[in-house]
Amino acid sequence: MAEYLLMRARRIRRTPFSDRVEAAGVQAYSVYNHMLLPGRFTTAEDEYRHLKTRVQVWDVGCERQIEVRGRDAARLLQMLTPRDLRPLMAGQCAYTPMVDETGGMLNDPVTVKLAEDRFWISIADSDLLLWVKALAYGFRLEVDVTEPDVWPLAVQGPKADDLVSRVFGEAVRDIRFFRFYRLPFHGHDLVIARSGYSKQGGFEIYLDRGELAEPLWDALMEAGQDLQVRPGCPNLIERIEGRLLSYGNDMTRENTPHECGLGRFCNTLTAIGCVGRDALLRVAMDGPLRQIRSLAIEGEPVPACVGPWPLHDPTSGERVGQVTSAVWSPDFRTNVAIGMVDLRYWNEGTRLQLEAPDGPRWANVREAPFA
Amino acid sequence: MAEYLLMRARRIRRTPFSDRVEAAGVQAYSVYNHMLLPGRFTTAEDEYRHLKTRVQVWDVGCERQIEVRGRDAARLLQMLTPRDLRPLMAGQCAYTPMVDETGGMLNDPVTVKLAEDRFWISIADSDLLLWVKALAYGFRLEVDVTEPDVWPLAVQGPKADDLVSRVFGEAVRDIRFFRFYRLPFHGHDLVIARSGYSKQGGFEIYLDRGELAEPLWDALMEAGQDLQVRPGCPNLIERIEGRLLSYGNDMTRENTPHECGLGRFCNTLTAIGCVGRDALLRVAMDGPLRQIRSLAIEGEPVPACVGPWPLHDPTSGERVGQVTSAVWSPDFRTNVAIGMVDLRYWNEGTRLQLEAPDGPRWANVREAPFA
Repeated sequence: MAEYLLMRARRIRRTPFSDRVEAAGVQAYSVYNHMLLPGRFTTAEDEYRHLKTRVQVWDVGCERQIEVRGRDAARLLQMLTPRDLRPLMAGQCAYTPMVDETGGMLNDPVTVKLAEDRFWISIADSDLLLWVKALAYGFRLEVDVTEPDVWPLAVQGPKADDLVSRVFGEAVRDIRFFRFYRLPFHGHDLVIARSGYSKQGGFEIYLDRGELAEPLWDALMEAGQDLQVRPGCPNLIERIEGRLLSYGNDMTRENTPHECGLGRFCNTLTAIGCVGRDALLRVAMDGPLRQIRSLAIEGEPVPACVGPWPLHDPTSGERVGQVTSAVWSPDFRTNVAIGMVDLRYWNEGTRLQLEAPDGPRWANVREAPFA
Repeated sequence: MAEYLLMRARRIRRTPFSDRVEAAGVQAYSVYNHMLLPGRFTTAEDEYRHLKTRVQVWDVGCERQIEVRGRDAARLLQMLTPRDLRPLMAGQCAYTPMVDETGGMLNDPVTVKLAEDRFWISIADSDLLLWVKALAYGFRLEVDVTEPDVWPLAVQGPKADDLVSRVFGEAVRDIRFFRFYRLPFHGHDLVIARSGYSKQGGFEIYLDRGELAEPLWDALMEAGQDLQVRPGCPNLIERIEGRLLSYGNDMTRENTPHECGLGRFCNTLTAIGCVGRDALLRVAMDGPLRQIRSLAIEGEPVPACVGPWPLHDPTSGERVGQVTSAVWSPDFRTNVAIGMVDLRYWNEGTRLQLEAPDGPRWANVREAPFA
């Protein structure tokens, strides 16, 4: 597939890390929440190897925060998601499918509970802020809903604990998965959570002071020299292997959380107040008619996947699903993919005909992720 | 400024015209409403000359539509905008600043009134759909709010009437500005409005059948051979000269319509029901404290403008505004720009110090656009 340049404008916002990212030799960007998201420094394969063995620093400032603060903050949060948020304590994060009144996915953010009456919603690529603000307005809730200037910086890879502890102290090793501590950097406390968009482990540092961006970046790069730290970005191969979903790619407003395999994050019966609850109750009981699956695609490395690729019943020719993310995996020696497959076809090992742009191929359904 | 490649994924959606756009040699894309927007085929300057003398076909499929249909459709539309929509008749379009409860700009779409109870909102780059859906939900309105598959194709330039009439018939010459006709193409009626994001005149064809995309593109290209028709895209130079604002670039949620110079599209007193009305009534009376202006920036061609460039009082050094779009204009032999300037400094001819990335420059305020 041909490659194209990205037009630049203020509308596609820079992060406070962008100058460092460019000095480090970024080659390609994606656009995410109207903001630059680094896409490649060397090659996806090289970065994949490095991510799985070392440690990387990712500018994910494009994970914008929605801050909800005030007396009705918890009520408003519960309106957004079928996950029961009552057990969530301050200091915890929760992966929260967020749905509209039909149960369709609007975003799949991490909710960070800062205090009983204060949350950050760390969003994927949709302007969820507009949904949250309008609900607060429509229901006359006593909350303030804003987009604060907070730019997450991710540190991912097996050496992440070593690196982050050198900058923030040994306490970071005690941070449990999806918990956060507030730890000082240049005299300013930063929220540091054990989380991130890879299966290799690591942290997300919620930078809320732009002027500390370059000192933080530099401190991590210097402290990690002998760990071979490098700038990086979410890696397509690693995320597809691990079946980390991407909003807009693998799921859209057309899909319920149950179709996305996110039923385990839904407590629809007890999530009283969720605006999608009525629509999701039956889905929660009956289960979905199609669902996210991993797939192995046979043959040579596939071309870049930029649109749904149809999956067909090889006998009847009927369309029974689609692939939405696919790439060659060096470790698994096959093309790994994520797709949505109809109920009758979603069992392990089902062999489907894939309509790829370069011709038909065989795709084999897997119930578990690759990694 | 260095150039970067655009990472591709399903999340950055293609339009039904994308294959033709790529076959025609597009070099750069922007991302707009999670969709590809062509950014350059040759050079901005070459395309500017051509746009001002000939005719171009633009894939603006990224101008997504929000369809609002039902008994409360007109009520919901009025909730969105301080423009009084009561005079708008079916068959008309209206430029409609859309604001939140604080009067901050959420989008600046064209509203297309298809029928008394059916509208399309042809949006700029924000997920306004989420705002509209949540208001409909919060106020229990009897409306259906959807994102239909409608992809506008613009035909812009002085030869636009000649070209479009060859494909759709002489009736198109009778379409008045911001009105639309329904005219058949391959047996299917398409909404064709006299509108578009240039000052050169032309049409926007609202294609609502994907399979007609390539026949429509080809028909226009074939019919316009002797008119020297070319594929094109919104031109940065031409739009800055003409002071066509760009949401996300020249205005954001931080700005009221009055700051954006859009007061003439606001009828805040009579726009009963607009959710931003309370906030805007005082602004409508007193006027804004800062406002959009054109500026001429002295010196050599400026570098690409990707962030606000501060404007200072040359005596006190105080920050008194910012430039948000800027480019060299071959016709005006100066750098043309759009910015927001504080009240005390916004009069014609005021000379301000601009902090450009390559050093300080003089900027001269203009009340009128260049073109």
